Amino acid sequence: MKKVEETNLKLFALNSNRPLAEKIAQALGIELGKLTVTRFDDGEISLNIEESIRGDEVYVVQSTSYPGNEYLIELLIMIDALRRASAKEINVVIPYYGYARQDRKAKAREPITAKLVANMLEKAGADRVLALDLHAAQLQGYFDIPVDHLLGVPLLASYILDYDFKEEVVVVAPHHGAISRARMLAQFLNVPLAIIDRRQPKPKESEEISVIGEVAGKVCIIADDIIDTARTVTTSAQALLEANVHNVFVAATHGVFSDDSIEKLKQAPIEKIIVTDSIDLPPEKQIDKIIQVTVSELFADAIERIFKNEAVSPLFKDKYDGYHK
Amino acid sequence: MKKVEETNLKLFALNSNRPLAEKIAQALGIELGKLTVTRFDDGEISLNIEESIRGDEVYVVQSTSYPGNEYLIELLIMIDALRRASAKEINVVIPYYGYARQDRKAKAREPITAKLVANMLEKAGADRVLALDLHAAQLQGYFDIPVDHLLGVPLLASYILDYDFKEEVVVVAPHHGAISRARMLAQFLNVPLAIIDRRQPKPKESEEISVIGEVAGKVCIIADDIIDTARTVTTSAQALLEANVHNVFVAATHGVFSDDSIEKLKQAPIEKIIVTDSIDLPPEKQIDKIIQVTVSELFADAIERIFKNEAVSPLFKDKYDGYHK
Amino acid sequence: MKKVEETNLKLFALNSNRPLAEKIAQALGIELGKLTVTRFDDGEISLNIEESIRGDEVYVVQSTSYPGNEYLIELLIMIDALRRASAKEINVVIPYYGYARQDRKAKAREPITAKLVANMLEKAGADRVLALDLHAAQLQGYFDIPVDHLLGVPLLASYILDYDFKEEVVVVAPHHGAISRARMLAQFLNVPLAIIDRRQPKPKESEEISVIGEVAGKVCIIADDIIDTARTVTTSAQALLEANVHNVFVAATHGVFSDDSIEKLKQAPIEKIIVTDSIDLPPEKQIDKIIQVTVSELFADAIERIFKNEAVSPLFKDKYDGYHK
Amino acid sequence: MKKVEETNLKLFALNSNRPLAEKIAQALGIELGKLTVTRFDDGEISLNIEESIRGDEVYVVQSTSYPGNEYLIELLIMIDALRRASAKEINVVIPYYGYARQDRKAKAREPITAKLVANMLEKAGADRVLALDLHAAQLQGYFDIPVDHLLGVPLLASYILDYDFKEEVVVVAPHHGAISRARMLAQFLNVPLAIIDRRQPKPKESEEISVIGEVAGKVCIIADDIIDTARTVTTSAQALLEANVHNVFVAATHGVFSDDSIEKLKQAPIEKIIVTDSIDLPPEKQIDKIIQVTVSELFADAIERIFKNEAVSPLFKDKYDGYHK
Amino acid sequence: MKKVEETNLKLFALNSNRPLAEKIAQALGIELGKLTVTRFDDGEISLNIEESIRGDEVYVVQSTSYPGNEYLIELLIMIDALRRASAKEINVVIPYYGYARQDRKAKAREPITAKLVANMLEKAGADRVLALDLHAAQLQGYFDIPVDHLLGVPLLASYILDYDFKEEVVVVAPHHGAISRARMLAQFLNVPLAIIDRRQPKPKESEEISVIGEVAGKVCIIADDIIDTARTVTTSAQALLEANVHNVFVAATHGVFSDDSIEKLKQAPIEKIIVTDSIDLPPEKQIDKIIQVTVSELFADAIERIFKNEAVSPLFKDKYDGYHK
Amino acid sequence: MKKVEETNLKLFALNSNRPLAEKIAQALGIELGKLTVTRFDDGEISLNIEESIRGDEVYVVQSTSYPGNEYLIELLIMIDALRRASAKEINVVIPYYGYARQDRKAKAREPITAKLVANMLEKAGADRVLALDLHAAQLQGYFDIPVDHLLGVPLLASYILDYDFKEEVVVVAPHHGAISRARMLAQFLNVPLAIIDRRQPKPKESEEISVIGEVAGKVCIIADDIIDTARTVTTSAQALLEANVHNVFVAATHGVFSDDSIEKLKQAPIEKIIVTDSIDLPPEKQIDKIIQVTVSELFADAIERIFKNEAVSPLFKDKYDGYHK
Repeated sequence: MKKVEETNLKLFALNSNRPLAEKIAQALGIELGKLTVTRFDDGEISLNIEESIRGDEVYVVQSTSYPGNEYLIELLIMIDALRRASAKEINVVIPYYGYARQDRKAKAREPITAKLVANMLEKAGADRVLALDLHAAQLQGYFDIPVDHLLGVPLLASYILDYDFKEEVVVVAPHHGAISRARMLAQFLNVPLAIIDRRQPKPKESEEISVIGEVAGKVCIIADDIIDTARTVTTSAQALLEANVHNVFVAATHGVFSDDSIEKLKQAPIEKIIVTDSIDLPPEKQIDKIIQVTVSELFADAIERIFKNEAVSPLFKDKYDGYHK
Repeated sequence: MKKVEETNLKLFALNSNRPLAEKIAQALGIELGKLTVTRFDDGEISLNIEESIRGDEVYVVQSTSYPGNEYLIELLIMIDALRRASAKEINVVIPYYGYARQDRKAKAREPITAKLVANMLEKAGADRVLALDLHAAQLQGYFDIPVDHLLGVPLLASYILDYDFKEEVVVVAPHHGAISRARMLAQFLNVPLAIIDRRQPKPKESEEISVIGEVAGKVCIIADDIIDTARTVTTSAQALLEANVHNVFVAATHGVFSDDSIEKLKQAPIEKIIVTDSIDLPPEKQIDKIIQVTVSELFADAIERIFKNEAVSPLFKDKYDGYHK
Repeated sequence: MKKVEETNLKLFALNSNRPLAEKIAQALGIELGKLTVTRFDDGEISLNIEESIRGDEVYVVQSTSYPGNEYLIELLIMIDALRRASAKEINVVIPYYGYARQDRKAKAREPITAKLVANMLEKAGADRVLALDLHAAQLQGYFDIPVDHLLGVPLLASYILDYDFKEEVVVVAPHHGAISRARMLAQFLNVPLAIIDRRQPKPKESEEISVIGEVAGKVCIIADDIIDTARTVTTSAQALLEANVHNVFVAATHGVFSDDSIEKLKQAPIEKIIVTDSIDLPPEKQIDKIIQVTVSELFADAIERIFKNEAVSPLFKDKYDGYHK
Repeated sequence: MKKVEETNLKLFALNSNRPLAEKIAQALGIELGKLTVTRFDDGEISLNIEESIRGDEVYVVQSTSYPGNEYLIELLIMIDALRRASAKEINVVIPYYGYARQDRKAKAREPITAKLVANMLEKAGADRVLALDLHAAQLQGYFDIPVDHLLGVPLLASYILDYDFKEEVVVVAPHHGAISRARMLAQFLNVPLAIIDRRQPKPKESEEISVIGEVAGKVCIIADDIIDTARTVTTSAQALLEANVHNVFVAATHGVFSDDSIEKLKQAPIEKIIVTDSIDLPPEKQIDKIIQVTVSELFADAIERIFKNEAVSPLFKDKYDGYHK
Repeated sequence: MKKVEETNLKLFALNSNRPLAEKIAQALGIELGKLTVTRFDDGEISLNIEESIRGDEVYVVQSTSYPGNEYLIELLIMIDALRRASAKEINVVIPYYGYARQDRKAKAREPITAKLVANMLEKAGADRVLALDLHAAQLQGYFDIPVDHLLGVPLLASYILDYDFKEEVVVVAPHHGAISRARMLAQFLNVPLAIIDRRQPKPKESEEISVIGEVAGKVCIIADDIIDTARTVTTSAQALLEANVHNVFVAATHGVFSDDSIEKLKQAPIEKIIVTDSIDLPPEKQIDKIIQVTVSELFADAIERIFKNEAVSPLFKDKYDGYHK
Repeated sequence: MKKVEETNLKLFALNSNRPLAEKIAQALGIELGKLTVTRFDDGEISLNIEESIRGDEVYVVQSTSYPGNEYLIELLIMIDALRRASAKEINVVIPYYGYARQDRKAKAREPITAKLVANMLEKAGADRVLALDLHAAQLQGYFDIPVDHLLGVPLLASYILDYDFKEEVVVVAPHHGAISRARMLAQFLNVPLAIIDRRQPKPKESEEISVIGEVAGKVCIIADDIIDTARTVTTSAQALLEANVHNVFVAATHGVFSDDSIEKLKQAPIEKIIVTDSIDLPPEKQIDKIIQVTVSELFADAIERIFKNEAVSPLFKDKYDGYHK
């Protein structure tokens, strides 16, 4: 008995960011796979894949954003079910990778949860990861399976370039860890860089903040990868204001917006906060200041290229090379 | 440089059942290890082991009861931290093993989450599991590390034997899956067995319930391993009542008590519900009908024997042999 | 250099149940692959695959029935040879999975041989398992590779339904562990259930047997998964006779028939013993009372669906849904 | 709670070579561990470790000689049981390693069973292997766990040196694969070497045998590692006789003696066959010509050194250096 | 047979940095283990451990500095030999971890060699890694075995604090990737921070360099983790000079000094280059400007604490807390 | 979305033997893949795959000849890059497998580097190995992935058969370890065999050499797998000359030619040295006496057969069966 090998692409959405998954499906011109993920009465996850995926190349979209532990377990269970149901290839699409900031032992006896998560995904049976602006690029190496690492910065840059700023623009790194990313945005925008320097003079004393670089009179675009409690960007905005800047924007890939961050941002001297839709923004957090740029086409392009065995690398060049002027 | 090997025993409690962990520590005559497990603003787990465990044999107490996904991730992160901090041996004490009922593919494309959980624990770095009345004994084989599997039934039996029932007693299995456990309890109590037979005549029709065995006029002790929604035990109690029994008790190792189960049990024709403290019972669920028998001494004995390289098997014989008369 | 991927299906029979393998091949319309498996003078296995299987999806049929250790090693060696010879996919078809009953530590320091066997198969290089009525459904989770678990009960039910019994029928579980399976058969036949209760009053004393449920005057069909020494079914038949039943049939998936079981069955008050051909029945064990229902078409269907990447789940629905009335 | 680490040595015998295991125990001054290994009625292995081995360093003696598949499975099951029962270290003592000759693909699609066996032992949970004269020294590398590889040749040499041969002695390699071992024996005896050259002129034609080296009038000691069917040594003896040698001895570590080999050896022009007791020689195979040299003290010494963390390497030097004159 | 567990500490030096290993041994008050590592005529490594290490906790000192491939293979072979020779624990002490900068895919189809190296070390059998100032802290997560990550910055800070600078001091990060480390040094020295900003206006055009922060008239201490070709520090020094600084020092943990870097540094406007002895500095590279601070006591302390099961974390606090003023 | 599976074959050459890789490409009618492998200033390997290999079956040609450690790391890094870049299958073509002679522990505490190398290749991500005349055939078992093991001896035989020797020919094994290979060559040439016996009377004394077998007046072809320092073949040639042979040829698969071997061979009484091009012979080593037979067509045939899922085994039969007469 002989067959010519044919393979289907299937795309499934778990619960964390169904709107994004639907946009990706639309961009690919396919339907989302049939799947029910609910909770039993005791809170355990009940997962039911409602169509055959035997021999298919499956893509599962799940951000491990809040509540991250729930969404991570959902993802692991889905992978387990796919593997046991004879999927040919299990690709996990993780627009926002939770626990990415727990990526080293900063103190004695800390976990490295970002690696633990990678180990769990691999052990469960994932064959490939598609990620977006991982907190540290080194996290690619936490996996031994292929990681296709997409960049959100070009999309943010593209959005910003559409503004026609009258004043000079400067990109500001709001802390040391953000400099590489700020440098990349500045490169795309072809503008200079400034840095917010933070130091703690003594343990338990409060942080001293100073601005390094020329910012006075300029449009400042604070660049980071994640906005979580918004403490860093709001204190940065305040410091910039005291340095007589023209006004302040924020650009970040992932909008976590935990706790009372939305309230803080409303009141902060910030014009606009530009983020992607890597994390679903519930209606109660949608305020005018926050702009969401979609990464759906980026992911759809990547998925199609992977499925068709085309290089993913030219994706960026074709689209965003213009910004490198 | 030479050393004589000395090893410390350390016991840590995660967040699911600290009262039980404290009782185990007390029974062992030691303090719980210093540990903080909190949440960052975005809900991610922040875990801080506050004393050295280098070279120690560590025991971590965590039931993966509601919210089970949170508690499972807590446990995995703790194991990761212990491994990276050079613990000599990581023993996970799981009085209630969540997801145990997802132990086979009952329908197409289901996960086997009980095995996934076992894989995650092993991959994270667990060296041994101490468990109590696993839903199916076969789950021991889901691990390749040693599993010391303790029995709660003798403790439940011991409590029941202290009652001085005037009427004849019969143990009732409330569904087919509960028969082995019910048989074991009947053996301990030296009384006969009856069974609640449940069949669904057609798909989507409601279940037909009948009692198989002699129950009229007797004290019925419904035996199961888990009380979750309480549907099974309350419909069983109703069926028994219609079969003219004297009265109804319930004995089960794990009291999950999800949803509106407490309310259902209050109103059900049941005298007492005897469970262990494998799952912490919050004050709002503590009603007079529910009796908690502690498993702390059982776990303390087991831990001490494991630490001292003594057989765990005689534990039961020494204490509970009397019941086999 | 470019190729369009084409894949062959190859089916091989090891020594345990060549007649079944031949029927499966016939049902698939293919020839069995060329293979010689003999013994060297010192009893070691000499295995010679006599056709190229490079890039093929290979299915190997082997029950690990008596002599199970020999047949298990045969299977492991075949997997090793296939892997080293660049098979694309190695599917092991195990109609009878030996050691399935060693699936938990019932006493101190017991092995869990059913898991050991699973580990050996995976480590040797198996990619998928096709099994039939595993002793406990939980064994599916002993594997991390896909397990396609087929059901023999519908085939047994189909055979029984062709009888036109004049008396009422009842399905009897001959011990507690058999109830789930008996329940399933009763469901297919749409008849009630009874149970043989066995208890040992004191250690080393003999078992007390009693029948729970209505059986008098009825046709009793004792349902189990395995008939091994036949002790359980013959003592059950005796107990049923004493309870004035009309007559007794036995239905079980796997006919091990070890030791003097055939003699016992000949003399027992049993009309017919219905089993499948999951285990080859040698001529000297073929007695009139024993009926063999073939599982060859079931396996052939499953293999064809797996090869063609079609869902295996509808297999049952299409064929056996009629019995659920 | 603190403990000073103490460890017990436990030695267990499986069924293949209990006499050797008893001698090893005696040489160590300990009792064999309590263990029952029997068969269920269907031929499956029932294994019961009857004393606690928690935290112990365990040594299990098992040759995988005829019936090798049975004995291999016994060993794997024992390892599984020991691991699950929390042995500290599982050392497998394999005086004769079956399937050692299946150590490469000599033809297309052959298995490499010697490696499969190694993989099975490691996967089951073995921590160390003690072996004797492995067929090819390269097999040490089939394991990633430590292999302590003992040599039987010095013991054979020691026995031969006690003979006071009047004629000159020559060691004869009976085929090309035996030359390294023959060279080693010749070195111990300080005598020259000859070789039996075997070539097959055309496929399916019979072998041509010729003697290379000076043998006329000498005492010839044919040296090999394994005597199995005895075809090689008996044809060698015949060829030597035709070359006018004085007489012929045979020295080999492992006496498999399969098939009708004993009968062949009785009738062959061979004075004595010197082997070790790595394989148990049943009474019906004990003929005057066959001398068994015990390896029990060698294994006992090695076990004691391993247990006490002393180097195993000087074992040979201390005892056998005298032969290197 | 019973033993009380005693363990030896053994320290071995491979070829990359024997002087450092000798200092560590001296600080521990022990001799280096006997070991010969040479080359066969064809360049393959010949390694001979000349004393028993059975049951010992072994530490192997090897920087994978130039020639890094040779030294990495030396280390892997040593681990293999130790594992097969039954070392109890294999600790690899890697003062300089080569390939650390290949820690992410910066372009399409790049390797992540830093992870590959980690995988190789783990697979070969390493049980723990002791490292110093890994290029990115995230590399700790490339291992699943414990990593004890020591800090060189406090030692560099300590040395610098002994200078009694008359002018104000500023720490300068010579590129964006160096900022976290520069921040840490500035914190230890209690001085401000400046940054060298580097941007490439167009592909293949040369880099534009500018200084961000106050540096005029100050003592500038350029801080980085690795000095390799010295291009970065020499161009930084030049840029600082043009910004009218008082003078320039360089502080870095690892002195790779490849290519013509020594010549460049001789001619650069740099007062002193302070590095550690993590990499052996051959006589021909020892120039007056280069100061080597030893990390031998730091490693010796860490090894002793690990061996004695004491926390490694307080090491820093006890010694260097004073610098946090 | 659906695709028909198509796969490309890609062939890459690393640095060790680019001429051979080019010949293989030519024989296959394809271009070598675009790849740059250089060194950073500090000697670390910089590897850049310059075309997409996503979904391709990739073959990488690399002999781990001198400098073997460098070339091994090159190969491991290439495999890492290919895996992360989503190659479908990574086949490593290793015409000369360095460290093959470190295949057992000959002395205490030696590594088994040949196995370490195999482990590294598998862990890095290799899917299949193509090798040529591995030093010991047992090395095939060092891998759990398929090894297609090609034979160089038929090619050497074919070359020799083209000579029209007037005198009788004898194949000579220059030491015991070479006999199997010499036997195979003698079989191909249909001539007898002789052996050089080497023994060391006492430790540290020099070797005694004697010739076993008839050689006087004959053309002697010394057969081995590797010529490294050439000590063995030159001392053999000398011994043969003293035994009055007609003249001496050497045939070996792998020409390592380390150290001053070329000079030794020039002066030795050897007519011709026939080797394959498994190792690149640099111009300074190309002397008239050395003949290189190419293995490029053999490898090209094998690669094409593997790619097209055809058996590799008939390769030899078709081409070389003629020699077996």
